Amino acid sequence: MSESSVKFNKISISKRAREIQGSPIRKLAFIAEARKKEGIKIFHLNIGQPDLASPLAVRDFMHAFSEKTIEYAPSNGLPPVLNAWKNYFFHCGIHFHENEMIVTTGGSEALIFALCAVCDPGDDVIVFEPFYTNYAGFASIANAKLTPIPLHIEDSFQLPSKEEIEKHITPRTKAILFCNPSNPTGKVYRKEELRELVDLALEYNLFLISDEVYREFAYEKKPISIANIPEVFEQAILVDSCSKRFNMCGARVGVLATKNKEVLDAVLKFGMARLSVATVEQLAMVPMLNNPDAFVKPMVEEFHRRRDAVYERLTRIPDVTYYKPEGAFYIVVGLPVNDAEHFAKWLVEEFDDNNETVLVAPAQGFYATPGKGKNEVRLAFMLNVPDLQRSLEIIEKALNVYRGQFI
Amino acid sequence: MSESSVKFNKISISKRAREIQGSPIRKLAFIAEARKKEGIKIFHLNIGQPDLASPLAVRDFMHAFSEKTIEYAPSNGLPPVLNAWKNYFFHCGIHFHENEMIVTTGGSEALIFALCAVCDPGDDVIVFEPFYTNYAGFASIANAKLTPIPLHIEDSFQLPSKEEIEKHITPRTKAILFCNPSNPTGKVYRKEELRELVDLALEYNLFLISDEVYREFAYEKKPISIANIPEVFEQAILVDSCSKRFNMCGARVGVLATKNKEVLDAVLKFGMARLSVATVEQLAMVPMLNNPDAFVKPMVEEFHRRRDAVYERLTRIPDVTYYKPEGAFYIVVGLPVNDAEHFAKWLVEEFDDNNETVLVAPAQGFYATPGKGKNEVRLAFMLNVPDLQRSLEIIEKALNVYRGQFI
Repeated sequence: MSESSVKFNKISISKRAREIQGSPIRKLAFIAEARKKEGIKIFHLNIGQPDLASPLAVRDFMHAFSEKTIEYAPSNGLPPVLNAWKNYFFHCGIHFHENEMIVTTGGSEALIFALCAVCDPGDDVIVFEPFYTNYAGFASIANAKLTPIPLHIEDSFQLPSKEEIEKHITPRTKAILFCNPSNPTGKVYRKEELRELVDLALEYNLFLISDEVYREFAYEKKPISIANIPEVFEQAILVDSCSKRFNMCGARVGVLATKNKEVLDAVLKFGMARLSVATVEQLAMVPMLNNPDAFVKPMVEEFHRRRDAVYERLTRIPDVTYYKPEGAFYIVVGLPVNDAEHFAKWLVEEFDDNNETVLVAPAQGFYATPGKGKNEVRLAFMLNVPDLQRSLEIIEKALNVYRGQFI
Repeated sequence: MSESSVKFNKISISKRAREIQGSPIRKLAFIAEARKKEGIKIFHLNIGQPDLASPLAVRDFMHAFSEKTIEYAPSNGLPPVLNAWKNYFFHCGIHFHENEMIVTTGGSEALIFALCAVCDPGDDVIVFEPFYTNYAGFASIANAKLTPIPLHIEDSFQLPSKEEIEKHITPRTKAILFCNPSNPTGKVYRKEELRELVDLALEYNLFLISDEVYREFAYEKKPISIANIPEVFEQAILVDSCSKRFNMCGARVGVLATKNKEVLDAVLKFGMARLSVATVEQLAMVPMLNNPDAFVKPMVEEFHRRRDAVYERLTRIPDVTYYKPEGAFYIVVGLPVNDAEHFAKWLVEEFDDNNETVLVAPAQGFYATPGKGKNEVRLAFMLNVPDLQRSLEIIEKALNVYRGQFI
């Protein structure tokens, strides 16, 4: 029975609510919890929640907190926090005034606001798949449509030609959304690739939404910020967050920065609707943003060692495919199985080696094209080097057992 | 030139972004800041940011915080926080299991999620105006359409008859959204009024989204929660928040609770997309939710005194109209001016009495019907009794001056 043929339907939720996918990163987590209760140790490679300690400066800030009233912050962010973001960007060679930014509840809210600001329902945003799976969730909330352009492990996830991307642009295409360095591929875009995106943006009047939350996690070359390409200043929306670089995922402090005044004004109005970002956690980020290196540099060195260890260990597992990540702290691995989600579930639910197993994120949820990524998983480098090596050993053993039982 | 007639438009933001209104509560705040720099004292009656101290238990929690890593919380909320919400609700005579709730970034996010869960773009939600102005912003973000039904000061803001409301219901009406006790009217819905809404929900298969963040701020009778009407369990979505009752506006910890599993599953997926609510501020709310009365009761007594003082002082100002609020901490006042926004701007920008003036919220932004509320302002009881009395004295004097200068 079509909905429009009936005057008043049975109570029902919205189409977007019916269609939004669950998080592939989080959906096996319940099984892992149950398994832990059976005494099985689980190595978590599923989620980008760093295992390292949060900065001591944050705890010091909390211990010294003496404000009488924890008030609403201004909708665009607390002045010292805006100033600290400005200082942090300046330190990175990126120039934004305080009035070109709004503090957001994590990079997540910045992305939702960016999509709402540039898209009306049914408008398109181009993404390169595999992409950070939550982009699909943000698009559902914003009622935007993601147009995925596939990249391939075997091509080092490089962007297709300008002509190839052009084929996907329609009059309803409003933006290209990308993550640089990329979650989940570890790709850091080359200058020529960014040039191609800039040319497309200029030619087709598109916004470029650049998610740069992994900026410092780059092991070969420094990523180029979208905010350093003056030609697209008016079309660039930069999304950033404290979560990863300060190991403060639980703080939910991000930022949206743009020199496009129309976008900023609109985003500020969305921001006014939701009032403000958590006051204490905003303030706790000020010392980190003002002095990032002391914390970030040694952490990135540790992730560099982890990246190398994962890569080295993977070379010894037969029949897997992968691309050596240049940045972020994830790797997409093609497995010699038909259904990586089935494997991942089996791995955490049924398999163990000496009472230990591994939780990974099936990569299919990082694709929007049906059927793509079916044999892939994403691993996050969230453990120390010996634990990562042990996790890959478990995966190798599990693959051998699994391939004897399933096709 | 119509947008669809051109293949690739000049870069432009979305329609929803162009149309979203700024916050009438916050838009004069910039002027107030400038005026303060000139040495003028401003009494803030514009925003519901209580002036009282936040609970000491929250500061104690922060001072004792010792977690090594500030991790992502689970998307549905940290287990002790869900448990504390359950305990809090139980204390209020409301019964929800932990798995019927999701912790949200303030009541704001709960309302955005509720609208996204029940509406597709262009679907209608009925609201009674004046309504909490940010409902319009949430609707813009969710691309839902608000259908306002006017209430009137002179009728004590009582709901119209069932037949009158029915006239506004269309096949695209998905929900009735209301605030009880109400911001901005101070209305606490009578049993018969809720009965009417319940009957309409049952008859037309509508969701009832009930914003109950002011539950304890009720000076005449206890409000009835939507969650205490078993007939609409499957159609009720309860929105709540710690902001007001624990004077923790800056913490941004709310909750969405519903016995409708489909809604809850959808909201959880929206929640997974944005990952989690700030970890520290969630945890800081646990002692408050587990033991609300010690803090809440004396605070509500203070607001009761303020409500009485405002009401008493208003009776002595000629030509103003108002309804004595039974709950929350706002009052909508009809002023003897043609354009209350012009008056409010003039009041904060140009007027002073002994170097003091007042910032109020023009009420027009609390209406969706064009032209409605043009002569009204909303006052929030955010000052102690003497300061409230002084503020109303200033408003009275300002009205006399203004009416000599403007019509």
